[in-house]
Amino acid sequence: MRTRAAVAVEAGKPLEIMDVNLEGPRAGEVLVEVRATGICHTDDFTLSGADPEGLFPAILGHEGAGVVVEVGAGVTSLKPGDHVIPLYTPECRECDYCLNPKTNLCQAIRTTQGAGKMPDGTSRFSTLDGDEILHYMGCSTFSNHTVLPEIALAKVREDAPFDKICYIGCGVTTGIGAVINTAKVEIGSRCVVFGLGGIGLNVIQGLRLAGADQIVGVDINPGKKEMAERFGMTDFVNPTEVEGDLVPYLVNLTKGGADYSFDATGNVKVMRQALECAHKGWGESIIIGVAPAGAEISTRPFQLVTGRSWRGTAFGGARGRTDVPRIVDWYMEGKIEIDPMITHTMPLSDINTGFELMHSGESIRSVVLY
Amino acid sequence: MRTRAAVAVEAGKPLEIMDVNLEGPRAGEVLVEVRATGICHTDDFTLSGADPEGLFPAILGHEGAGVVVEVGAGVTSLKPGDHVIPLYTPECRECDYCLNPKTNLCQAIRTTQGAGKMPDGTSRFSTLDGDEILHYMGCSTFSNHTVLPEIALAKVREDAPFDKICYIGCGVTTGIGAVINTAKVEIGSRCVVFGLGGIGLNVIQGLRLAGADQIVGVDINPGKKEMAERFGMTDFVNPTEVEGDLVPYLVNLTKGGADYSFDATGNVKVMRQALECAHKGWGESIIIGVAPAGAEISTRPFQLVTGRSWRGTAFGGARGRTDVPRIVDWYMEGKIEIDPMITHTMPLSDINTGFELMHSGESIRSVVLY
Ligand SMILES: [Zn+2]
Ligand SMILES: [Zn+2]
Ligand SMILES: [Zn+2]
Ligand SMILES: [Zn+2]
Repeated sequence: MRTRAAVAVEAGKPLEIMDVNLEGPRAGEVLVEVRATGICHTDDFTLSGADPEGLFPAILGHEGAGVVVEVGAGVTSLKPGDHVIPLYTPECRECDYCLNPKTNLCQAIRTTQGAGKMPDGTSRFSTLDGDEILHYMGCSTFSNHTVLPEIALAKVREDAPFDKICYIGCGVTTGIGAVINTAKVEIGSRCVVFGLGGIGLNVIQGLRLAGADQIVGVDINPGKKEMAERFGMTDFVNPTEVEGDLVPYLVNLTKGGADYSFDATGNVKVMRQALECAHKGWGESIIIGVAPAGAEISTRPFQLVTGRSWRGTAFGGARGRTDVPRIVDWYMEGKIEIDPMITHTMPLSDINTGFELMHSGESIRSVVLY
Repeated sequence: MRTRAAVAVEAGKPLEIMDVNLEGPRAGEVLVEVRATGICHTDDFTLSGADPEGLFPAILGHEGAGVVVEVGAGVTSLKPGDHVIPLYTPECRECDYCLNPKTNLCQAIRTTQGAGKMPDGTSRFSTLDGDEILHYMGCSTFSNHTVLPEIALAKVREDAPFDKICYIGCGVTTGIGAVINTAKVEIGSRCVVFGLGGIGLNVIQGLRLAGADQIVGVDINPGKKEMAERFGMTDFVNPTEVEGDLVPYLVNLTKGGADYSFDATGNVKVMRQALECAHKGWGESIIIGVAPAGAEISTRPFQLVTGRSWRGTAFGGARGRTDVPRIVDWYMEGKIEIDPMITHTMPLSDINTGFELMHSGESIRSVVLY
C-alpha cells in the first residue's frame, strides 16, 4: 500500500513529507494506522546526526497511538480495530530479560530493531522508486501507517484519545516509570528532579502519585516553575540563583539529602550533582537523560561507599504490553495529567515546525495529528 | 591505669611500643581487655599518612576481640567478663540511620569518633607524661586495654577463639556482608570478585554461603588462586594473561555478565571494569575497596541506563551489635572459615613486622596476640 510519511533522508536535514510504499504485515507483524504521534528529543537526536547509531534514510517517530488495520499470520493478541500504542521497548514475555523481574529490556528483536529492520531482517518501507527506507526504534510513527511486531504493541482501551495517549508511548511512561518501576519511591520520600522539560514534569507527577513529601525541581529556566508546580513540584531551585555550591544547598533543603534524585537533563555534570545530593546511607540517583556520545559521568567512590546508589532507567523500567495499558487507565481516571503538556498540535505536513518549537524551548510536547 | 600499646606517633613512622595511661570508662563507656587484633590495610593507610583524615599521635587498630573489664555508669547491655568485638561502625539503635533499614551507617558518635575522641569529646589515652593520645576509629585495638562506647561493642559467645574472631571485626564482615547485606546475592547468581586479598577471599566465601553458581576471581597475582579456590572460587582470571579487553572476556565467561560484581582492590580503573562486566539489565556492582584520596570513578551513563547499578558498602552493610554475633556463630558452626586466612601471629612487640608482611604481600592477615 501507499501511505504518507515524513522521511529523514539525511542527517541534519529537515524531514521530507512524501508518499511511501508500505508492505503488509508478515508473520507475527501488525499493520497499524497511526492517529497521533509526539515528537521526542530522541527523534531530534537522531535527525541531527549526533546519534552515532542513527541510520538513514529512515522514518523516525516512536511515540504514537493508533488502530490495528491488519494482522499477519500467527498474531493472536491483536485484531483489526484494536487501539494500540507502539513500543520501542517490546515485551516478548519469553526471553531471558522478560523472564527476569529486575529488567524491562526485552532483547527478542534488539539486533534487527537497531538495524532499522523488522525481525526477519527486512524493511516494510520503500520509496515509490523502490529504494529501501529504514524503520526507527521499531516504530516509525512519523508515517500514517506502519508495521510493527506483535510484541511491540500495547493494546489500550478504546475510549482514550489518541492525541493525548500517544505521549504515553515514550515521555509519560519514561518519567512516571522511573519513579514507580525503577526507583520504587516510597510514600513520604524527599526527592529532587533535575530538568523540568517533558520528562522532568512526568517524573514530578510520578512522585506526586507515589506520595512523595517533598518534590524539588531544579532548572536554570525560571519559566519552567509554574508548570512544574501544577504537576506537584513543592520547591523550585534555579542553580544560577544559588550562592555557593548547588549540592550542599540541595542537601540542606532536603534535610540531609534526597531519598531519590532524578536526572532528566542528559548533562553528565548534572548527573554528578544528582548523585551527590542524594542522602548519605540510602539515597538513590536515577539517570534518565541521554548523554552526548562519549560523555562520561564521574564521582569519588566515597559517594557510593557511604551508601548512595547510582542507577539508570530506560522507558521507565516499564514492560510495555503490561504497564502501558495501566498508565492509559490512570490518565482516563484522572490519576495523572497529560493535556497541559501537549502544548502544540499540527498536521504531518508541519512536522518540521514541531522540531523548531522543541529547539526554541517553546513547546513541552508537539503532537502530529494524522 | 597503665597499659601496653603500639602508638602511631607520626605519619610514615613505625609504631612505637610503650606504656600509656588509660582512664577508666565514663558514663556509657566500657573498658575492654583486648586479647587479639588483626592488622588491616586501613591501619596502614592511616599510618602511611595517605589518609587525609588521619590524626596523630593515636593508637590505631580496629579489628579486635576481647573481654569486658569494667563498665561505666548507665551501661546495661554488657558486664565484666563478657566477650566482645569492637565496632568501628557502632549501632545505637536510635538515630535516623539505625532506624532506617536501608543503611548501617549509625551516626550517633560520628563526629567525635572522626576526631579521635570518645563521645564526650575527650580521649582516655595519654602518655606517661600526660600528653593526649587519640583514639582511632573508636576502637584503638593496638592497645592491650581500651575504652569504647557501649554502642560500639558486639557481645559474642564465650567459646569463640579471640585470635580468629577478631578478624570478624573488619575483614570478614566487610567481605561477607557486602554479599549478604549490600548485594543480597540470590542463589544461582554468577559473580565476579576483583582482588583476592583478605576482603576478596571473604567476598568469595560469602558468595559460596549465598549459593552463587559461578564465582570468578580476578587478580594479577597467580599466587592467589589456590587459596581463593579453597574459599569457593570457581574460575580464576589473571588480567595480564587475557588477550584483548578484560570486560568482554568476563562478560563472555559469565554468559552475559555478572549478576553481581565486587571491587576489593581500591583501584578506580578496576571499579570501572567491575561495573562494566555486570550484566545488562540487572547487574549490580559493589565497591568495597577504599580508593586513594581524590581518585574518581567514571563510566558512560549508558552503562547505568541499560540497567547496571553502581553501589558501595561500608563494614559490609552490617549492623554490628546485631550481625557480628551471628557471623561469630557461623564461624563456630563451620559455615564460614577464618583459620586459613590468619597466616601470621605475633606479640605486640612485633607489630611492625605485621605491617611489613602486609607490604610484601606475604600475609593474608597478621594477628597480634596480647
Ligand atoms: Zn522518546
Ligand atoms: Zn523479551
Ligand atoms: Zn579494617
Ligand atoms: Zn545509630
